[in-house]
Amino acid sequence: MTINECVAYLKEHDNYLIISHKRPDGDTLGSGAALCSALRRSGKTAFCLPNPETIANYLPLVAPFDAPEGYKQDVVVAVDIADLPLMPEGFCGSVQLCIDHHPSNGEYAPNLCLDETKASCGEIILQILKALELGITSTEADLLYVAISTDTGCFMYMNTNAETFRAGAELLELGADNKNLNTRLFRTMSRQRMVLEGLVLSGMRFFRGDSISVVTVTLDMMAQSGATENDCEDLAGIAGKAEGSLVSMTIRQLGENSCKVSLRSKPPVNCTEICAVYGGGGHALASGCTIDLPPEETLAAMLRAIDEKWPV
Amino acid sequence: MTINECVAYLKEHDNYLIISHKRPDGDTLGSGAALCSALRRSGKTAFCLPNPETIANYLPLVAPFDAPEGYKQDVVVAVDIADLPLMPEGFCGSVQLCIDHHPSNGEYAPNLCLDETKASCGEIILQILKALELGITSTEADLLYVAISTDTGCFMYMNTNAETFRAGAELLELGADNKNLNTRLFRTMSRQRMVLEGLVLSGMRFFRGDSISVVTVTLDMMAQSGATENDCEDLAGIAGKAEGSLVSMTIRQLGENSCKVSLRSKPPVNCTEICAVYGGGGHALASGCTIDLPPEETLAAMLRAIDEKWPV
Repeated sequence: MTINECVAYLKEHDNYLIISHKRPDGDTLGSGAALCSALRRSGKTAFCLPNPETIANYLPLVAPFDAPEGYKQDVVVAVDIADLPLMPEGFCGSVQLCIDHHPSNGEYAPNLCLDETKASCGEIILQILKALELGITSTEADLLYVAISTDTGCFMYMNTNAETFRAGAELLELGADNKNLNTRLFRTMSRQRMVLEGLVLSGMRFFRGDSISVVTVTLDMMAQSGATENDCEDLAGIAGKAEGSLVSMTIRQLGENSCKVSLRSKPPVNCTEICAVYGGGGHALASGCTIDLPPEETLAAMLRAIDEKWPV
Repeated sequence: MTINECVAYLKEHDNYLIISHKRPDGDTLGSGAALCSALRRSGKTAFCLPNPETIANYLPLVAPFDAPEGYKQDVVVAVDIADLPLMPEGFCGSVQLCIDHHPSNGEYAPNLCLDETKASCGEIILQILKALELGITSTEADLLYVAISTDTGCFMYMNTNAETFRAGAELLELGADNKNLNTRLFRTMSRQRMVLEGLVLSGMRFFRGDSISVVTVTLDMMAQSGATENDCEDLAGIAGKAEGSLVSMTIRQLGENSCKVSLRSKPPVNCTEICAVYGGGGHALASGCTIDLPPEETLAAMLRAIDEKWPV
């Protein structure tokens, strides 16, 4: 459906529950809360499903929109949820409207407002809010700024396009506080994260010249730094920054004999093929798998898979 | 002078030499090269003064505009040079036109095109190129993207405003290759830099609770990591990311008994007052000084100055 059809649908119905995806990021949370706020201002009843995995950084922004215990909705709206595996428990068959920007959207909802040209779902919600013609509050501008800036790495990732910048300009003029939000989202690190990053960088390794860069995050490092899950956002992005790296691997130890592997690559290396060797999957340039081995054996296993699928 | 007056001046004269500031950043280099390119397309002779301190990342972008040995200019144009101490040797009295965005501009040039509302000089050059009405090439768009993105930390720093985003949108539509440029400028680290950052983060210290964060970069760390000056950009930004830090200090060892100190703060702490104790200076929120002591003694001396100027 188009933006206008989506707005017509939102005007026709009431009693909304807006849901965000598992392991929520700023886009799903900020987009959902901004939509919720605007729906309320339009006279509707609307809440967001509290997402138990929300990290501390986003909590104060989205908490005012949390649904109370026992709230019964008429319409479930999925925001930024590409497909069923990312759906919160118990909602797989009940989404009436999906608003999304992922090309891989599974078309699981009877009403789908999808725009794959957008870098973030927040940009689609911005269009919806404009089409609602109620104005946009500075709180909504903040929430959409969070959505757009986090999904684009503060306008740094490859998905950033001219429209993303125009959305940023509009949101600042609507009062989005990019100064404070950027400081909080992108320019503040916990002491634990700093120590952890120090350990991670100091232990970085390279294989096949510079072309494979490997970062290991062991349980020991987590203990030594005092880091928790809140301190681990985007750890998988570190190894890929190494100059000359074509494949970057982040091995996160989950238990004594269990590791989660995140693999990222530059063309022509295909991560999906490599991770599929151990039953994993994802995209061509970013995939993952879980291997039931300690970190060093996991590394050896992955290097074998890389050599097999991407021979020297 | 206004943008139109500046353009009229540029059309009237010929044989330009465009100069960039000492310790050049992407803004002074990208802005100068973009202006040079457009002047050449307008039929003028124009070159940029080769800047010996240009780091490797910027060299290939600006090299095509370097003035040949013995080139004699009629008009010297200073781009992004706030004041005389930043001027390249031998040009203090000879700048005819200055294009700048620093509120602290020293008004050293008889013709001054200054817009302090702009986050970067690149945004002013973009206005000038548009007013020249020759179109803008994708090379010029790349150069201006480098200027704007580096001066705003890829649209993350506090100076980023709605106009900055609009300039970004325009440049992308003109063909600026933000994907490759961002990877190169913001998402690539040398192995040496990664090792150095690991060492620096691992050695980070805190005083007065979380409120003073200190990073030390010793000659040993430089040797151990193999890092050179090319690997040291924005090291002074690391300590300030620590959560709760109000004053961040970066101590860079220059010799056995000599250290350069960069001090940054959040209001109300005034860095200038603290650095002035040792003959340094700068802005209220970012200052520096040089102290003829080894790193640990430098730290002790700075902590005394902080206690004196910003008592507990």
